[in-house]
Amino acid sequence: MPLTRISAPRHLPQAQVRALADAAQQALVSTCNVPTKDLFQLLARFDAGEMILDPDFGGVQRSQDACIVEITFLQGRTDDQKRALYQRLTALAVQAGFRPDDVMIALVENTRMDWSLGHGVAYADHVQSQKQAGA
Amino acid sequence: MPLTRISAPRHLPQAQVRALADAAQQALVSTCNVPTKDLFQLLARFDAGEMILDPDFGGVQRSQDACIVEITFLQGRTDDQKRALYQRLTALAVQAGFRPDDVMIALVENTRMDWSLGHGVAYADHVQSQKQAGA
Amino acid sequence: MPLTRISAPRHLPQAQVRALADAAQQALVSTCNVPTKDLFQLLARFDAGEMILDPDFGGVQRSQDACIVEITFLQGRTDDQKRALYQRLTALAVQAGFRPDDVMIALVENTRMDWSLGHGVAYADHVQSQKQAGA
Repeated sequence: MPLTRISAPRHLPQAQVRALADAAQQALVSTCNVPTKDLFQLLARFDAGEMILDPDFGGVQRSQDACIVEITFLQGRTDDQKRALYQRLTALAVQAGFRPDDVMIALVENTRMDWSLGHGVAYADHVQSQKQAGA
Repeated sequence: MPLTRISAPRHLPQAQVRALADAAQQALVSTCNVPTKDLFQLLARFDAGEMILDPDFGGVQRSQDACIVEITFLQGRTDDQKRALYQRLTALAVQAGFRPDDVMIALVENTRMDWSLGHGVAYADHVQSQKQAGA
Repeated sequence: MPLTRISAPRHLPQAQVRALADAAQQALVSTCNVPTKDLFQLLARFDAGEMILDPDFGGVQRSQDACIVEITFLQGRTDDQKRALYQRLTALAVQAGFRPDDVMIALVENTRMDWSLGHGVAYADHVQSQKQAGA
Protein backbone atom coordinates (compact mmCIF):
# COMPACT_ATOMS: atom_id res chain seq x y z
CA MET A 1 0.00 0.00 0.00
CA PRO A 2 2.65 2.26 -0.76
CA LEU A 3 1.13 3.98 -3.77
CA THR A 4 3.94 4.84 -6.17
CA ARG A 5 3.36 7.40 -8.90
CA ILE A 6 6.07 7.68 -11.52
CA SER A 7 6.18 10.71 -13.80
CA ALA A 8 8.39 10.13 -16.82
CA PRO A 9 9.12 11.97 -20.07
CA ARG A 10 7.23 10.50 -22.99
CA HIS A 11 10.32 9.69 -25.04
CA LEU A 12 11.63 7.11 -22.55
CA PRO A 13 11.02 3.48 -23.61
CA GLN A 14 8.25 1.81 -21.66
CA ALA A 15 10.64 -0.92 -20.55
CA GLN A 16 12.88 1.65 -18.91
CA VAL A 17 10.02 3.32 -17.07
CA ARG A 18 8.82 -0.07 -15.97
CA ALA A 19 12.32 -0.85 -14.74
CA LEU A 20 12.23 2.32 -12.64
CA ALA A 21 8.92 1.16 -11.18
CA ASP A 22 10.48 -2.20 -10.40
CA ALA A 23 13.40 -0.42 -8.76
CA ALA A 24 11.02 1.54 -6.56
CA GLN A 25 9.20 -1.58 -5.44
CA GLN A 26 12.36 -3.59 -4.83
CA ALA A 27 13.80 -0.74 -2.80
CA LEU A 28 10.63 -0.40 -0.72
CA VAL A 29 10.71 -4.13 -0.02
CA SER A 30 14.38 -4.31 0.91
CA THR A 31 14.61 -1.12 3.00
CA CYS A 32 11.14 -0.32 4.37
CA ASN A 33 9.56 -3.67 5.26
CA VAL A 34 7.05 -3.47 2.44
CA PRO A 35 5.69 -6.92 1.49
CA THR A 36 6.69 -7.94 -2.03
CA LYS A 37 3.09 -8.22 -3.15
CA ASP A 38 2.14 -4.86 -1.63
CA LEU A 39 2.47 -3.36 -5.09
CA PHE A 40 0.46 -0.39 -6.36
CA GLN A 41 1.95 1.81 -9.05
CA LEU A 42 0.79 4.40 -11.55
CA LEU A 43 3.02 5.35 -14.49
CA ALA A 44 2.31 8.68 -16.18
CA ARG A 45 4.02 10.23 -19.21
CA PHE A 46 4.65 13.88 -19.95
CA ASP A 47 5.47 15.63 -23.20
CA ALA A 48 8.38 18.01 -23.45
CA GLY A 49 7.32 21.23 -21.79
CA GLU A 50 4.90 19.50 -19.42
CA MET A 51 7.65 18.38 -17.06
CA ILE A 52 9.59 21.40 -15.90
CA LEU A 53 12.61 20.45 -13.83
CA ASP A 54 15.49 22.73 -12.99
CA PRO A 55 18.58 21.31 -14.69
CA ASP A 56 20.90 21.47 -11.69
CA PHE A 57 19.21 22.43 -8.43
CA GLY A 58 20.36 20.37 -5.45
CA GLY A 59 23.81 19.57 -6.72
CA VAL A 60 22.75 17.26 -9.55
CA GLN A 61 22.82 17.53 -13.36
CA ARG A 62 19.43 16.53 -14.72
CA SER A 63 19.04 15.37 -18.30
CA GLN A 64 15.93 15.13 -20.48
CA ASP A 65 15.43 11.65 -19.05
CA ALA A 66 14.81 12.80 -15.46
CA CYS A 67 11.87 11.14 -13.69
CA ILE A 68 10.00 11.79 -10.48
CA VAL A 69 9.01 8.97 -8.13
CA GLU A 70 6.30 9.94 -5.63
CA ILE A 71 5.47 7.46 -2.90
CA THR A 72 2.57 7.73 -0.48
CA PHE A 73 3.05 5.28 2.37
CA LEU A 74 2.57 4.66 6.07
CA GLN A 75 4.30 6.94 8.53
CA GLY A 76 6.79 5.31 10.85
CA ARG A 77 9.81 4.74 8.65
CA THR A 78 12.98 6.04 10.29
CA ASP A 79 15.33 8.55 8.74
CA ASP A 80 17.78 5.73 8.12
CA GLN A 81 15.15 3.67 6.35
CA LYS A 82 14.37 6.62 4.10
CA ARG A 83 18.08 7.12 3.41
CA ALA A 84 18.39 3.45 2.50
CA LEU A 85 15.29 3.68 0.30
CA TYR A 86 16.74 6.56 -1.71
CA GLN A 87 20.10 4.88 -2.10
CA ARG A 88 18.68 1.51 -3.07
CA LEU A 89 16.04 2.85 -5.44
CA THR A 90 18.58 5.02 -7.22
CA ALA A 91 21.17 2.25 -7.40
CA LEU A 92 18.63 -0.08 -8.97
CA ALA A 93 17.53 2.65 -11.38
CA VAL A 94 21.14 3.09 -12.46
CA GLN A 95 21.30 -0.63 -13.18
CA ALA A 96 18.23 -0.06 -15.39
CA GLY A 97 20.00 2.62 -17.39
CA PHE A 98 19.21 5.82 -15.53
CA ARG A 99 21.76 8.41 -14.55
CA PRO A 100 21.75 8.86 -10.75
CA ASP A 101 21.03 12.56 -11.31
CA ASP A 102 17.78 11.72 -13.06
CA VAL A 103 15.97 10.05 -10.18
CA MET A 104 14.04 12.42 -7.94
CA ILE A 105 11.99 10.99 -5.09
CA ALA A 106 9.28 12.50 -2.88
CA LEU A 107 7.49 10.85 0.04
CA VAL A 108 4.13 11.64 1.62
CA GLU A 109 2.98 9.77 4.70
CA ASN A 110 -0.38 8.73 6.07
CA THR A 111 -1.71 6.05 8.44
CA ARG A 112 -3.25 2.58 8.35
CA MET A 113 -6.66 4.14 8.77
CA ASP A 114 -6.12 6.09 5.54
CA TRP A 115 -6.24 3.09 3.20
CA SER A 116 -8.81 0.67 1.95
CA LEU A 117 -7.34 -1.93 -0.37
CA GLY A 118 -10.75 -3.26 -1.37
CA HIS A 119 -14.14 -4.47 -0.12
CA GLY A 120 -14.63 -1.12 1.62
CA VAL A 121 -12.56 -2.31 4.58
CA ALA A 122 -10.08 0.00 6.29
CA TYR A 123 -6.57 -1.43 6.09
CA ALA A 124 -6.15 -0.94 9.83
CA ASP A 125 -9.08 -3.27 10.41
CA HIS A 126 -7.88 -5.77 7.80
CA VAL A 127 -4.51 -6.02 9.54
CA GLN A 128 -6.22 -6.43 12.89
CA SER A 129 -8.45 -9.25 11.63
CA GLN A 130 -5.42 -10.96 10.07
CA LYS A 131 -3.65 -10.87 13.43
CA GLN A 132 -6.63 -12.31 15.22
CA ALA A 133 -7.01 -15.05 12.62
CA GLY A 134 -3.36 -15.93 13.09
CA ALA A 135 -3.51 -15.96 16.87
CA MET B 1 -12.55 20.82 -0.97
CA PRO B 2 -11.81 17.31 -0.82
CA LEU B 3 -9.83 16.89 -4.00
CA THR B 4 -10.58 13.45 -5.41
CA ARG B 5 -8.27 11.94 -8.01
CA ILE B 6 -9.52 8.79 -9.70
CA SER B 7 -7.10 6.59 -11.63
CA ALA B 8 -8.90 4.18 -13.92
CA PRO B 9 -7.89 1.75 -16.67
CA ARG B 10 -8.51 3.19 -20.13
CA HIS B 11 -10.83 0.42 -21.24
CA LEU B 12 -13.53 1.28 -18.69
CA PRO B 13 -16.49 3.22 -20.12
CA GLN B 14 -16.48 6.89 -19.18
CA ALA B 15 -19.93 6.53 -17.65
CA GLN B 16 -18.62 3.89 -15.24
CA VAL B 17 -15.65 6.00 -14.18
CA ARG B 18 -17.96 8.94 -13.73
CA ALA B 19 -20.22 6.75 -11.60
CA LEU B 20 -17.25 5.92 -9.40
CA ALA B 21 -16.58 9.63 -9.05
CA ASP B 22 -20.21 10.17 -8.09
CA ALA B 23 -19.92 7.35 -5.55
CA ALA B 24 -16.89 9.03 -4.00
CA GLN B 25 -18.67 12.36 -3.68
CA GLN B 26 -21.89 10.87 -2.32
CA ALA B 27 -19.91 8.89 0.23
CA LEU B 28 -17.96 11.96 1.33
CA VAL B 29 -21.20 13.88 1.75
CA SER B 30 -23.02 11.17 3.67
CA THR B 31 -20.20 10.08 5.97
CA CYS B 32 -17.73 12.96 6.34
CA ASN B 33 -19.85 16.12 6.48
CA VAL B 34 -18.69 17.31 3.09
CA PRO B 35 -21.14 19.80 1.55
CA THR B 36 -22.78 18.45 -1.62
CA LYS B 37 -21.40 21.26 -3.73
CA ASP B 38 -17.89 20.87 -2.30
CA LEU B 39 -16.99 18.90 -5.41
CA PHE B 40 -13.52 18.79 -6.98
CA GLN B 41 -12.51 15.73 -8.98
CA LEU B 42 -9.88 14.74 -11.49
CA LEU B 43 -10.33 11.59 -13.58
CA ALA B 44 -7.22 10.09 -15.16
CA ARG B 45 -6.92 7.07 -17.43
CA PHE B 46 -4.08 4.59 -17.71
CA ASP B 47 -3.19 2.15 -20.45
CA ALA B 48 -2.52 -1.48 -19.68
CA GLY B 49 0.94 -1.66 -18.17
CA GLU B 50 0.77 1.85 -16.73
CA MET B 51 -1.33 0.77 -13.76
CA ILE B 52 0.47 -1.95 -11.88
CA LEU B 53 -1.65 -3.40 -9.10
CA ASP B 54 -0.96 -6.64 -7.31
CA PRO B 55 -3.82 -9.03 -8.13
CA ASP B 56 -4.55 -10.18 -4.60
CA PHE B 57 -2.65 -8.29 -1.91
CA GLY B 58 -4.76 -7.40 1.12
CA GLY B 59 -7.22 -10.26 0.84
CA VAL B 60 -8.95 -9.07 -2.34
CA GLN B 61 -9.04 -10.35 -5.91
CA ARG B 62 -8.41 -7.46 -8.27
CA SER B 63 -9.50 -7.60 -11.89
CA GLN B 64 -8.41 -5.54 -14.88
CA ASP B 65 -11.11 -3.03 -13.91
CA ALA B 66 -9.53 -2.05 -10.57
CA CYS B 67 -9.43 1.69 -9.87
CA ILE B 68 -7.72 3.87 -7.28
CA VAL B 69 -9.53 6.71 -5.52
CA GLU B 70 -7.21 9.21 -3.84
CA ILE B 71 -8.78 11.86 -1.65
CA THR B 72 -6.97 14.84 -0.15
CA PHE B 73 -9.13 16.43 2.52
CA LEU B 74 -9.16 18.19 5.87
CA GLN B 75 -7.81 16.36 8.88
CA GLY B 76 -10.23 15.72 11.70
CA ARG B 77 -12.34 12.86 10.42
CA THR B 78 -12.59 10.09 13.00
CA ASP B 79 -11.64 6.49 12.37
CA ASP B 80 -15.32 5.61 12.27
CA GLN B 81 -16.01 8.28 9.68
CA LYS B 82 -13.23 6.88 7.52
CA ARG B 83 -14.60 3.36 7.96
CA ALA B 84 -18.04 4.58 6.91
CA LEU B 85 -16.53 6.42 3.95
CA TYR B 86 -14.84 3.27 2.65
CA GLN B 87 -17.96 1.17 3.12
CA ARG B 88 -20.31 3.67 1.54
CA LEU B 89 -18.05 4.57 -1.37
CA THR B 90 -17.51 0.90 -2.20
CA ALA B 91 -21.18 0.01 -1.83
CA LEU B 92 -22.12 2.80 -4.23
CA ALA B 93 -19.40 1.72 -6.64
CA VAL B 94 -20.81 -1.79 -6.60
CA GLN B 95 -24.20 -0.36 -7.53
CA ALA B 96 -22.42 1.29 -10.47
CA GLY B 97 -21.07 -2.04 -11.68
CA PHE B 98 -17.74 -2.39 -9.89
CA ARG B 99 -16.62 -5.45 -8.03
CA PRO B 100 -15.91 -4.57 -4.38
CA ASP B 101 -12.38 -5.90 -4.85
CA ASP B 102 -11.70 -3.31 -7.52
CA VAL B 103 -12.07 -0.18 -5.40
CA MET B 104 -8.90 0.94 -3.65
CA ILE B 105 -8.97 4.15 -1.61
CA ALA B 106 -6.17 6.29 -0.18
CA LEU B 107 -6.54 9.40 1.98
CA VAL B 108 -4.14 12.27 2.57
CA GLU B 109 -5.00 15.01 5.06
CA ASN B 110 -4.19 18.68 5.31
CA THR B 111 -5.71 21.75 7.01
CA ARG B 112 -8.02 24.66 6.21
CA MET B 113 -5.00 26.87 5.75
CA ASP B 114 -3.80 24.56 2.96
CA TRP B 115 -6.54 25.41 0.48
CA SER B 116 -7.53 28.35 -1.63
CA LEU B 117 -10.70 27.71 -3.63
CA GLY B 118 -10.32 30.90 -5.65
CA HIS B 119 -9.65 34.64 -5.51
CA GLY B 120 -6.36 33.95 -3.74
CA VAL B 121 -8.16 33.64 -0.41
CA ALA B 122 -7.19 30.96 2.11
CA TYR B 123 -10.13 28.67 2.81
CA ALA B 124 -9.62 29.15 6.54
CA ASP B 125 -10.21 32.87 6.08
CA HIS B 126 -13.17 32.34 3.76
CA VAL B 127 -14.86 30.14 6.37
CA GLN B 128 -14.14 32.71 9.05
CA SER B 129 -15.65 35.53 7.00
CA GLN B 130 -18.72 33.41 6.27
CA LYS B 131 -19.21 32.83 9.99
CA GLN B 132 -18.90 36.52 10.76
CA ALA B 133 -21.31 37.42 7.97
CA GLY B 134 -23.81 34.98 9.39
CA ALA B 135 -23.41 36.16 12.98
CA MET C 1 11.65 21.01 -4.02
CA PRO C 2 8.24 22.11 -3.91
CA LEU C 3 6.69 19.74 -6.41
CA THR C 4 3.94 21.61 -8.23
CA ARG C 5 1.31 19.69 -10.17
CA ILE C 6 -0.98 21.73 -12.37
CA SER C 7 -4.20 20.22 -13.68
CA ALA C 8 -5.65 22.20 -16.55
CA PRO C 9 -8.45 21.73 -19.08
CA ARG C 10 -7.16 20.56 -22.44
CA HIS C 11 -8.56 23.51 -24.38
CA LEU C 12 -6.33 26.07 -22.65
CA PRO C 13 -3.33 27.18 -24.73
CA GLN C 14 -0.06 25.68 -23.56
CA ALA C 15 1.38 29.17 -23.11
CA GLN C 16 -1.34 30.04 -20.64
CA VAL C 17 -0.84 26.87 -18.62
CA ARG C 18 2.87 27.50 -18.64
CA ALA C 19 2.20 31.05 -17.41
CA LEU C 20 0.23 29.59 -14.51
CA ALA C 21 3.18 27.36 -13.71
CA ASP C 22 5.46 30.40 -13.80
CA ALA C 23 3.04 32.23 -11.50
CA ALA C 24 3.19 29.36 -9.02
CA GLN C 25 6.97 29.34 -8.98
CA GLN C 26 7.31 33.12 -8.72
CA ALA C 27 4.83 33.16 -5.87
CA LEU C 28 6.67 30.37 -4.02
CA VAL C 29 9.93 32.28 -4.41
CA SER C 30 8.58 35.63 -3.29
CA THR C 31 6.43 34.45 -0.37
CA CYS C 32 7.81 31.14 0.91
CA ASN C 33 11.59 31.43 0.67
CA VAL C 34 11.83 28.93 -2.15
CA PRO C 35 15.07 29.33 -4.14
CA THR C 36 14.43 30.43 -7.74
CA LYS C 37 16.06 27.34 -9.15
CA ASP C 38 14.16 25.01 -6.82
CA LEU C 39 11.76 24.32 -9.67
CA PHE C 40 9.89 21.05 -10.19
CA GLN C 41 6.57 21.10 -12.02
CA LEU C 42 4.26 18.67 -13.74
CA LEU C 43 1.56 19.96 -16.11
CA ALA C 44 -1.36 17.63 -16.83
CA ARG C 45 -4.32 18.16 -19.14
CA PHE C 46 -7.86 16.91 -18.76
CA ASP C 47 -10.65 16.56 -21.30
CA ALA C 48 -14.10 17.96 -20.63
CA GLY C 49 -15.78 15.61 -18.21
CA GLU C 50 -12.51 14.48 -16.63
CA MET C 51 -12.21 17.60 -14.49
CA ILE C 52 -15.31 17.95 -12.38
CA LEU C 53 -15.37 21.19 -10.43
CA ASP C 54 -18.39 22.68 -8.76
CA PRO C 55 -19.18 25.96 -10.54
CA ASP C 56 -19.57 28.12 -7.45
CA PHE C 57 -18.62 26.42 -4.20
CA GLY C 58 -16.61 28.62 -1.86
CA GLY C 59 -17.95 31.93 -3.05
CA VAL C 60 -16.32 31.90 -6.48
CA GLN C 61 -17.68 31.56 -10.03
CA ARG C 62 -15.63 28.97 -11.88
CA SER C 63 -15.50 28.90 -15.66
CA GLN C 64 -14.45 26.14 -18.04
CA ASP C 65 -10.90 27.49 -17.71
CA ALA C 66 -10.52 26.65 -14.00
CA CYS C 67 -7.25 25.00 -13.02
CA ILE C 68 -5.96 23.28 -9.90
CA VAL C 69 -2.47 23.93 -8.54
CA GLU C 70 -1.27 21.28 -6.08
CA ILE C 71 1.97 21.94 -4.25
CA THR C 72 3.84 19.45 -2.08
CA PHE C 73 6.46 21.26 -0.02
CA LEU C 74 8.27 21.40 3.29
CA GLN C 75 6.26 22.00 6.43
CA GLY C 76 7.06 25.13 8.38
CA ARG C 77 5.45 27.87 6.34
CA THR C 78 3.36 30.14 8.53
CA ASP C 79 -0.30 30.90 7.93
CA ASP C 80 0.68 34.34 6.72
CA GLN C 81 3.14 32.90 4.24
CA LYS C 82 0.42 30.65 2.87
CA ARG C 83 -1.97 33.60 2.64
CA ALA C 84 0.67 35.56 0.75
CA LEU C 85 1.33 32.58 -1.51
CA TYR C 86 -2.33 32.31 -2.51
CA GLN C 87 -2.64 36.04 -3.11
CA ARG C 88 0.54 36.34 -5.10
CA LEU C 89 0.03 33.20 -7.18
CA THR C 90 -3.50 34.26 -8.08
CA ALA C 91 -2.50 37.86 -8.85
CA LEU C 92 0.21 36.62 -11.20
CA ALA C 93 -2.22 34.17 -12.80
CA VAL C 94 -4.61 37.05 -13.43
CA GLN C 95 -1.81 38.91 -15.17
CA ALA C 96 -1.45 35.80 -17.35
CA GLY C 97 -5.09 35.92 -18.37
CA PHE C 98 -6.84 33.83 -15.73
CA ARG C 99 -9.93 34.90 -13.85
CA PRO C 100 -9.21 34.94 -10.09
CA ASP C 101 -12.10 32.50 -9.64
CA ASP C 102 -10.36 29.94 -11.80
CA VAL C 103 -7.29 29.36 -9.66
CA MET C 104 -7.68 26.70 -6.99
CA ILE C 105 -4.69 25.80 -4.84
CA ALA C 106 -4.03 22.87 -2.50
CA LEU C 107 -0.97 22.31 -0.32
CA VAL C 108 0.43 19.11 1.16
CA GLU C 109 3.43 19.22 3.47
CA ASN C 110 6.28 16.88 4.23
CA THR C 111 9.82 17.15 5.63
CA ARG C 112 13.41 17.47 4.43
CA MET C 113 13.86 13.76 5.01
CA ASP C 114 11.06 13.06 2.53
CA TRP C 115 12.93 14.23 -0.57
CA SER C 116 15.82 13.04 -2.65
CA LEU C 117 16.60 15.39 -5.51
CA GLY C 118 19.07 12.99 -7.10
CA HIS C 119 22.04 10.68 -6.51
CA GLY C 120 19.99 8.78 -3.94
CA VAL C 121 20.84 11.37 -1.28
CA ALA C 122 18.22 12.57 1.20
CA TYR C 123 17.66 16.30 0.86
CA ALA C 124 18.13 16.70 4.62
CA ASP C 125 21.65 15.29 4.28
CA HIS C 126 22.41 17.35 1.18
CA VAL C 127 21.50 20.55 3.03
CA GLN C 128 23.61 19.47 5.99
CA SER C 129 26.64 18.79 3.81
CA GLN C 130 26.19 22.15 2.09
CA LYS C 131 26.20 23.89 5.45
CA GLN C 132 29.34 22.07 6.55
CA ALA C 133 31.07 22.89 3.28
CA GLY C 134 30.20 26.53 3.78
CA ALA C 135 31.33 26.64 7.41
